[in-house]
Amino acid sequence: MTRLTRSESQALTRLRLLKSARDLFRRDGYAVTSVDRIAEAAGYSKGAVYSNFEGKEAIFLAVLETESEENLGKLLKRLDRAETLDAVVDVLAEWADERSKSGGWSLTVLEHARVAPMGSASLRRQEEIVRAQWRRLGAYLLGRFPGVASDGEVLGALLFEIAYAPALTFVTAPGAGALVRFALPPLLARERQGELAIAG
Amino acid sequence: MTRLTRSESQALTRLRLLKSARDLFRRDGYAVTSVDRIAEAAGYSKGAVYSNFEGKEAIFLAVLETESEENLGKLLKRLDRAETLDAVVDVLAEWADERSKSGGWSLTVLEHARVAPMGSASLRRQEEIVRAQWRRLGAYLLGRFPGVASDGEVLGALLFEIAYAPALTFVTAPGAGALVRFALPPLLARERQGELAIAG
Repeated sequence: MTRLTRSESQALTRLRLLKSARDLFRRDGYAVTSVDRIAEAAGYSKGAVYSNFEGKEAIFLAVLETESEENLGKLLKRLDRAETLDAVVDVLAEWADERSKSGGWSLTVLEHARVAPMGSASLRRQEEIVRAQWRRLGAYLLGRFPGVASDGEVLGALLFEIAYAPALTFVTAPGAGALVRFALPPLLARERQGELAIAG
Repeated sequence: MTRLTRSESQALTRLRLLKSARDLFRRDGYAVTSVDRIAEAAGYSKGAVYSNFEGKEAIFLAVLETESEENLGKLLKRLDRAETLDAVVDVLAEWADERSKSGGWSLTVLEHARVAPMGSASLRRQEEIVRAQWRRLGAYLLGRFPGVASDGEVLGALLFEIAYAPALTFVTAPGAGALVRFALPPLLARERQGELAIAG
């Protein structure tokens, strides 16, 4: 058996707690998930939770941040492999279709927003995490397609909000991908806009 | 006191029940709102509810349909008064900002989608109501701006989903209106696309 250093063991505890918290928040939502349940699911005491996090809100925000970074990281890698504008649109449309069917997590974020007092530090933190994602995706796309879409944060927001759009979780068609394929090309493709105008 | 005919009195009962149901669904969500509570809030017996509706799902769907028609009707009237493309974009951006802050109702629709069994008649009905809205808004816009945006249902879906986008309920900026102003003009304005291509 591998012996862990004290700091390795602490990092492992934190990781396991975050994983259990993520699964519970996604499945049961924000209100129902308690520090007790997170500790139990991870196989630790409540004390272990409190030596790593201030409380449920702090765990929730840590999960949100970790999840956001992981998901965006994967998306940007897929985008890196897409060589043309059409391929980029394909990747984003597929990602939006996947996201819109993944459920759970985005409802939990809304639930937290409903529970957290207006203007509270945790709501501000949630907003920061969400907007940082939007800006990173937008900046990436504008870096690759320096076109007419000048506001990266709005471009990122548009794509994320289509991907997590409420009705797309239960409507069979059109899907989130169809919306991305519809809205994105005219925002990214300068030349194509010229073609369309001429064709008209 | 005005005497009501039997059918007037029935219509009034139905109207009052729908109004109470709407308020409760919006405030408390789908699960918590019961036939008992709806009857009580409207000042009727449970029997009065069942002589008008098959049950909670039927009331919910009737409220959804009534609300959708009312809201879309108001929006189309506002659009009728907007004379230019810019004015139409303004109306839609303002509408999206209002919708995204109106909360409650869209969460209830999601909750119903989570509770209703996959492929059930009520889920199919909810989808029909939602898509009918998308098609009507899309057809209206394409009727006025016969441009490059060829798919009315997708155009309507895009606008509705921006208006009800999840993060826009708690993020302070950019708002839903900013997303509409960003995404819509290139989809509706043929000539403007020409200008942009030339300006680039």
